[in-house]
Amino acid sequence: MEKRIQLGIIGYGGMGSLYARFLPSSAVNIVAATDTEPTRVQNARNAGLIGYDTVDELLADPNVNTVILSVPNHLHKEMCIKAAKAGKHVIDEKPSALTVAELDEMDKACKEAGVVFTVHQNRRWDKDMLTAKHAFDNGTVGNIFAIESRLHSGNGHMHDWHLIKEHGGGMMYDWGVHFIDQILFMMPNAKIKMLWADLKYVLHDDVDDYFKILMKMDNGITAHMELSTYMLAESPRWIVAGDKGTMVVKNFDCEGSIYTTNELLEKLPPQIAYTSSGPTRQFAPMSPDAIKQSPLPEVKAEWAEFFINVRDAIYDGAELKVKIPEVRRVLAVIEAVFKSAETGEAIGLEQ
Amino acid sequence: MEKRIQLGIIGYGGMGSLYARFLPSSAVNIVAATDTEPTRVQNARNAGLIGYDTVDELLADPNVNTVILSVPNHLHKEMCIKAAKAGKHVIDEKPSALTVAELDEMDKACKEAGVVFTVHQNRRWDKDMLTAKHAFDNGTVGNIFAIESRLHSGNGHMHDWHLIKEHGGGMMYDWGVHFIDQILFMMPNAKIKMLWADLKYVLHDDVDDYFKILMKMDNGITAHMELSTYMLAESPRWIVAGDKGTMVVKNFDCEGSIYTTNELLEKLPPQIAYTSSGPTRQFAPMSPDAIKQSPLPEVKAEWAEFFINVRDAIYDGAELKVKIPEVRRVLAVIEAVFKSAETGEAIGLEQ
Repeated sequence: MEKRIQLGIIGYGGMGSLYARFLPSSAVNIVAATDTEPTRVQNARNAGLIGYDTVDELLADPNVNTVILSVPNHLHKEMCIKAAKAGKHVIDEKPSALTVAELDEMDKACKEAGVVFTVHQNRRWDKDMLTAKHAFDNGTVGNIFAIESRLHSGNGHMHDWHLIKEHGGGMMYDWGVHFIDQILFMMPNAKIKMLWADLKYVLHDDVDDYFKILMKMDNGITAHMELSTYMLAESPRWIVAGDKGTMVVKNFDCEGSIYTTNELLEKLPPQIAYTSSGPTRQFAPMSPDAIKQSPLPEVKAEWAEFFINVRDAIYDGAELKVKIPEVRRVLAVIEAVFKSAETGEAIGLEQ
Repeated sequence: MEKRIQLGIIGYGGMGSLYARFLPSSAVNIVAATDTEPTRVQNARNAGLIGYDTVDELLADPNVNTVILSVPNHLHKEMCIKAAKAGKHVIDEKPSALTVAELDEMDKACKEAGVVFTVHQNRRWDKDMLTAKHAFDNGTVGNIFAIESRLHSGNGHMHDWHLIKEHGGGMMYDWGVHFIDQILFMMPNAKIKMLWADLKYVLHDDVDDYFKILMKMDNGITAHMELSTYMLAESPRWIVAGDKGTMVVKNFDCEGSIYTTNELLEKLPPQIAYTSSGPTRQFAPMSPDAIKQSPLPEVKAEWAEFFINVRDAIYDGAELKVKIPEVRRVLAVIEAVFKSAETGEAIGLEQ
């Protein structure tokens, strides 16, 4: 028997049609695809796949043993349960579902059918995040007290169903789910104490295109996540601040540095300086040699790992790298974000 | 009669001994100074002032009609009331007091004595803040949805009484009071709806050396204030984000730009791009000509204005530029910050 995922793609749109470009052929054989748009089914055929006009036809194909759900977010639940009942393993695109309650139904259906169920939280393999995580795992900046995860862009306008609230549109579901998952992945043993969030509708009426989330963790670290589709300032992707230094990862390409201070600066109180905004001691400019700048660590980021792991889970019973309780926790945080943003209140979690 | 403030300095330490360097001689004649440290009294004498060994002696000098209180924060109340009872006008250093209750006592004493009472919120005249304020007053970046006020430094360690909690030490009283005052000064007509705050003790056990404050205003703008004495990443001093662009003021020297997008970018959804962290549409890199970069506006910042105004209030009954109800509001916010940081809860204000 060939030990590869025999994949059917449900939803051959923006994401679905891209899998062929990055799925590892050692782990995945893309067999078929389906979509509600006939032109997309034709695209699949043109790409050498079997193009099915309906989901039911794809699910009836015995050569498909696994499906990936790259449909609009509000259809994840329906498609997942349908696929599980047809005996197919399910790789769900993120966000896993719109609510914890939806996910629980999906999980139940997969357990009853005895199929593997996981979620494509691909950004656990992003190099920028793994670089920031390195500071947690190696103590490079001492005891960490704050981490900031940010993404700003001038590509203000969203597209397709991401514009529609009922379809699970908006940036919170699209990227917020990654931001939260990444933070929890970095600090697997920390519990969330309090969460406060702000959502905005800057260029869109129906769906959020800006979020800011603060999470106080029980390890003393506060995580700050912010995203805007229309902030044109280039904020660094990651800042990890510790009592021995600061790591800055500027962008996806991992430009940036680790900054530490020399001993002299650490032991002496700062001297008064006269700035354009008057005298200040604490915020006096520092001499360039007071700060030491070191290169960021090199990390390995193997995107293929996710699919190799799913293959091993299907054929050899390997433990999944992305587990349902983990994505369930992320959805619970998203629910708290929506609630906090609406009421202005902080939400207690996991206490 | 000479229409100048005849000033006595109470507290000739870090700040008190600096006034001679920037107080406008057109408005202020520095007459005398006092301090509990004999060497500092001698410093005052060496600088050509009358050096008094005690506050009572200074207050008994009929040539002094106004005092400025540059004593540790916990002494503001006692010194203010003493000075008012001696019939002296009072210029209080910031923070005006440690609590709203203290300030109310001070205000009462000054009203009963019929003396002028104001607070040296000098950073209302900072050029960097006035540059950011320009976006509010002139609509340069459209409708503003977020403003970020940040200050990071590697000068980690504080000094003198700033290290002592009971003396009103810590960064919240020292700089938080400016951050909050500046934000409220920019949006004089907005009410604060909800506040959430985080304080940390990174290099100090007794006093805060990191704060993050979020304020949701009733005009739809969220203000984000953050300061750390030990974050080595150079975050911009100000980011003002609107639906037509973003203003970035990098530092006290007002380096920075206004960023706007061209029409094409505004009307088209972004195209998929392949980054080091995989495919993204919304956060695809933008072509350089998609973003227009314009210089920051030139603003006038006249530090002398504060003291000229106090002179005019004393001699001509002019309206004070820094009013007690304003600084009282700032203290109420600081009290909410301490409460939120302790409980993790968001605090409703001014609703």
